[in-house]
Amino acid sequence: MNQFPTTPIHLIETDEAGNTFHLKREDLLPFSFGGNKARIGLEYMKDLHARGATHLLAYGNARSNLCRVLSNLCAANGIPITILSPADDDGQRREAFNEKLCRSFGARILPCLKTGVADSVDMAMDMIRKEGGVPYYIYGDRTGQGNRATPTAAYVPVYEEIRRQGDFDVIALACGTGMTQAGLLCGQQLSGGSERIIGLSIAREAANAKAHIAAFANAWLDGQTIDESRIEVQDERRQTYGVFDEDVADTIRHMMRTHGVPMDGTYTGKAYCALKKLAQKEGWQGKKVLFIHTGGTPLFFDTL
Amino acid sequence: MNQFPTTPIHLIETDEAGNTFHLKREDLLPFSFGGNKARIGLEYMKDLHARGATHLLAYGNARSNLCRVLSNLCAANGIPITILSPADDDGQRREAFNEKLCRSFGARILPCLKTGVADSVDMAMDMIRKEGGVPYYIYGDRTGQGNRATPTAAYVPVYEEIRRQGDFDVIALACGTGMTQAGLLCGQQLSGGSERIIGLSIAREAANAKAHIAAFANAWLDGQTIDESRIEVQDERRQTYGVFDEDVADTIRHMMRTHGVPMDGTYTGKAYCALKKLAQKEGWQGKKVLFIHTGGTPLFFDTL
Repeated sequence: MNQFPTTPIHLIETDEAGNTFHLKREDLLPFSFGGNKARIGLEYMKDLHARGATHLLAYGNARSNLCRVLSNLCAANGIPITILSPADDDGQRREAFNEKLCRSFGARILPCLKTGVADSVDMAMDMIRKEGGVPYYIYGDRTGQGNRATPTAAYVPVYEEIRRQGDFDVIALACGTGMTQAGLLCGQQLSGGSERIIGLSIAREAANAKAHIAAFANAWLDGQTIDESRIEVQDERRQTYGVFDEDVADTIRHMMRTHGVPMDGTYTGKAYCALKKLAQKEGWQGKKVLFIHTGGTPLFFDTL
Repeated sequence: MNQFPTTPIHLIETDEAGNTFHLKREDLLPFSFGGNKARIGLEYMKDLHARGATHLLAYGNARSNLCRVLSNLCAANGIPITILSPADDDGQRREAFNEKLCRSFGARILPCLKTGVADSVDMAMDMIRKEGGVPYYIYGDRTGQGNRATPTAAYVPVYEEIRRQGDFDVIALACGTGMTQAGLLCGQQLSGGSERIIGLSIAREAANAKAHIAAFANAWLDGQTIDESRIEVQDERRQTYGVFDEDVADTIRHMMRTHGVPMDGTYTGKAYCALKKLAQKEGWQGKKVLFIHTGGTPLFFDTL
């Protein structure tokens, strides 16, 4: 599938202050349970082919949506894939449907330490070369630098897609790596849009997250630079990656029960919870708010 | 959500005989993991309100997609729901994500025997009335008769939606209760369409399945009758409900690996497998074939 259909936007709720909250259902992209990583995965695959590589090397833990989509794309295209898989922050390795899917797609999963990623990348690249493959590490070089334009490209056109679907005062989304937000910001800068684009950080501090977003955006802009005053990240509700509190659990239950929408405690549930708190804290009134549902259906079933 | 967006249709594969197989992604309807039962559930809810009932009574086993959607709609609308839940044919009760979701939506689940459904309906209706509720049994009276027009209504407009999206020689789908196929046939009869609409039976014998489809269609047509020569059901690949063989397992693996599309062993995987075998057996050439993916994402995770 080279071209995805436009994903639907629908109204979810109107709060007491007259703010309307809409969802863009990127989780309904029609490949591998969709989500932003379905678009980003396609960009990596295009880049792999353009560079003449024959073996994909990814990095991500058992819950990684990106690793699932990449493994699926690799299986579909006959490309072998190796995944460097760190344990959780507490040293545990938990079973997750995303990893189970990766395995079912034939991915080779190599456990690694979060503290020694560069060395693990070297070892994996060596192993792939010895097997006769031409490796493509999605994050670039051994230190994870040098391939930021590729994933950023995925969400540049989605900014325009959103504009064709409606005008919003705020576009909000979960902020993890920052690549999705960077793409939207590039799209906004190109077309001169002015709505707030807010990343709700799920783990990183705001300053750190903003630096990553700027790096992704500037890599894609290739010579121009992103207007840093437009990069907004809220981190008040961030928690350790994969860990979530009772407020987030309430949000997930509410979204499923009342709206039939699955969210998860790693990304979307945490971010949507943070968005609602932000609207209250800042006293938004009559705002038209779009939350991008960036997917993660297998994560929903992990904690059901 | 009163109005669903048009679900995408995309090309999946072209076989050696030049037949093209397309999927209509009803599994991506944006409520409660979608599927045909999302549309059918909405029709039941409208009918419940129109009749002034206050408590929904459903029937379905632990894997029922309909019971999941109804429980979700009831939770969203503040309507209590009771589910009569039979064991599997072998007497076992297996855990399934659909039942887990029903419970999370607050459904009351009453185990019942497949051989004594009418008595169980009586008991449940009595219980609901004693609690002060006005019960609505989705299948009508205690014997499951009298409410066939309601679910059939769901797929009458979908026939027109498909026609707006393209012309197909064959429209195929899993055939369980027959209500979805009945709706499509009513839509076709109203608009004078002539493509083959083929139900791939997942459990019932063809003659029995056809009689059910005719009953659903005639109830909706209300005075007119359905052209029975148009009711086509293939039952060669049917198996006990919920049981599937290695060919079906291969189909499910292939669809996920190669196309990123989840299917399940109860409905869609079984039916798509049957469709491909039918195309071979009848020697189709150059046909444009649409398979309606009628959902069941939680079932995919049950057997992952």
